[in-house]
Formats: sequence, C-alpha cells, structure tokens
Amino acid sequence: MRKIAESTVRRLSLYLRFLEEFEEQGVETVSSEALATRGGTTSAQVRKDLSFFGSFGKRGLGYSVPELASRLRDILGLGKTYRVAVIGAGNIGAALVHFRGFEKHGFCVVSLYDADPKKIGRKRSNLIVRDQMSIEGDISQEPIDMAIIVTPASVAQGLVDRLVQVGVKAFLNFAPVQLRVPDDVVVKNVSLALELEALSYGLRNR
Amino acid sequence: MRKIAESTVRRLSLYLRFLEEFEEQGVETVSSEALATRGGTTSAQVRKDLSFFGSFGKRGLGYSVPELASRLRDILGLGKTYRVAVIGAGNIGAALVHFRGFEKHGFCVVSLYDADPKKIGRKRSNLIVRDQMSIEGDISQEPIDMAIIVTPASVAQGLVDRLVQVGVKAFLNFAPVQLRVPDDVVVKNVSLALELEALSYGLRNR
Repeated sequence: MRKIAESTVRRLSLYLRFLEEFEEQGVETVSSEALATRGGTTSAQVRKDLSFFGSFGKRGLGYSVPELASRLRDILGLGKTYRVAVIGAGNIGAALVHFRGFEKHGFCVVSLYDADPKKIGRKRSNLIVRDQMSIEGDISQEPIDMAIIVTPASVAQGLVDRLVQVGVKAFLNFAPVQLRVPDDVVVKNVSLALELEALSYGLRNR
Repeated sequence: MRKIAESTVRRLSLYLRFLEEFEEQGVETVSSEALATRGGTTSAQVRKDLSFFGSFGKRGLGYSVPELASRLRDILGLGKTYRVAVIGAGNIGAALVHFRGFEKHGFCVVSLYDADPKKIGRKRSNLIVRDQMSIEGDISQEPIDMAIIVTPASVAQGLVDRLVQVGVKAFLNFAPVQLRVPDDVVVKNVSLALELEALSYGLRNR
C-alpha cells in the first residue's frame, strides 16, 4: 500500500465518526455527498480518499454503512484494543485519564506515571499514579502499545528513549519539543499552546 | 510575506520555547546547532526557517537570544494578549480552563459556555459557566479574539457560524468535524482520539 497523506488519514477518521452515528441510527446506506459534508470536503475527494483502499460502494446507490465502517476500522487498525500509558500526572495528564472519549475507540489507558513523590501513589480517576522509575519493569511484565507524553519538555526525550528501549512504538507527544525516534516508531504531536500560537500567526498574517 | 508551511510555524514556536528558557537563565547567544537540537532538525533548516523573515545572527557568533526571541514573538503575533472563549464545559473544556500553560503565552481564557442547564452557573476554575444562548450579546459587549470549540460534533458548525457572525476570526476546534468557515477565518484542529487513530494507522502500516 502506498503512503497516504496525514490529511487523508484524518478524513478517514472523520468519515468513520459519521458512519458510526449512522450505524447507531440504523441507517443502511450513505452517499459520498453526505460523507463529504461532514468531512468538510467534496464528494470527489471522498471517492478519491476511499479509492486508495480498493473499491467501495455502488454507483447511484451509495455506500453500505456497516460495510464501509468495518473497512475503515480495519484500514485504521482499530480492530483491537490498544494499551496506553500516560507519562506525566499534571493537569493535562490527569484530564486525559478522566477523558472517556478514548475507550470508545479502543484506546484503554492502563497506567499513569510521574516523577514527583508528592504525586506518586495518588489516585486519578481509576488509576494510581506510579513511579516513573518503574516504567521498564512494569512494561516488561505488561507491555503497552502507546505512550502519551505529558511531561516538561526537558525530560520528554529521555523518557521516550527509555520507552523505545522497552519496545514502545507509538507516542502522542504533548511536550513542546520535537522528539527524535527510530524510523519504525510513530510520533504525533499535540501542543495546545503551539496551536494557539499558530492561530495567532494566522491572524497576524492573513 | 509569502505563505510559510505549518511545519515551519511549529518549529518557530519550538525555537521560541527554547529561547525563553535561555532568557530566564541569562544566556546571551545561541547557535543554530543548539536550536536545531531542540527543534528536532538541522542547523541548515534553522537558518532556512529564520531566513523567511529577514536576516538574523552573525556568522560564527550565533544569534542574540533576546533579539531573536523578540523577533519570533513579533512574527508569531505574540506581542499582545488574546481573549479566548471556551465553548463547551465538559471534561476537556473544564481542563482547558484549569490549564495554566495558555496565559504564560498571552492567551487569556475569559469565558466558558455550555448549553446544559445543569452546567450553566457552575464554577470552573475562576469562571462561571455561561449560557450558550448569550454568546452574541456577551461578545458584542466584550469582544473575543479566539474561540476553543469543545462541543459535540453535531452542534460545532452551528456555534462556529454564530461566532463568525459576531466577528470571531480564529478557532481551535476539538470537535471531530471539519469546520466550514470564510477565507479570512483561521481554524486549527485538535482531536486526541483522531491523533490516537493516526498512531494506530501508523502502527498498522509501518
């Protein structure tokens, strides 16, 4: 399969959200026009996005909702449950553990770590904050699939290096630093302050 | 000024984070190599990124930390304080109001809205949850610069349309829907579940 753009993957996720709502409502078929409206794009773009992954739908009849949803879940690798660790138990880390939106999509937060002795041992939602020193030992016992990095920028790279050493291949990074990882490791960056700065840049340079 | 890539804007923000740490420590000059390390890039890329905005630094001497920091703040439009409204007082909305990282960078959350009568009137951090029905009236009295959308996908577009009507030009969107806005309005999207799905896609298609 050829490499597809991040923006395409994002639209596939949006189409899937829409299809899942239709599934709940018992709707059987959907047009590319309806998917386009929700994805903020055109029906030609929808057909192009889906054509990357083979042939879907019937001309004039639209797409079968359960079939397309199932195929998109497969494409996005959502057929399984992912075990996720949150590294950093500050404001945002704690909010992530509370966030119910992950589990619905197959991402299960199984552990929460911090380096601060005042936080270690405390309860956040249904998890006890663990000591960052025990990461390697814990993961060798119970592997995780992904880590969400919510630490200060200065310590993020060191923690990611340790997690990569014990086999973690996917990171969602909230620290305002560009992480260096081996080629077979996937990183996505989220920084709310950086997003606001991008808006500020956008406003200034319209 | 020609249009520069989002990835460049992101690196400028990262360089600025680094420079601000140096400013606090009283460091006077910094090399492009040091900036490159923090930005996860090469010193050639650093020089190229900065060259978009005119000439900086002296060969062999590096960049003046306060001068470059001040210039980057100017480029990113960070010389002022932005008034930000959070629309949606659920888990994530409430966490955003608690988040201290915004104010440090000039983004001041001034109001929080919800449509749920059970939430309206409640206190979240230092804000009282306001009724979404009063958005237009409030903003005509006290304009805002940006809105953070943390509502269900189904109502996001309608709220954004109303905010655009009363002059809001910048949106940070957490709702899993692609927003349609006029050309002079800036939108950045953040979806934690979509980021995790992009990781899942990345793991499946390495």
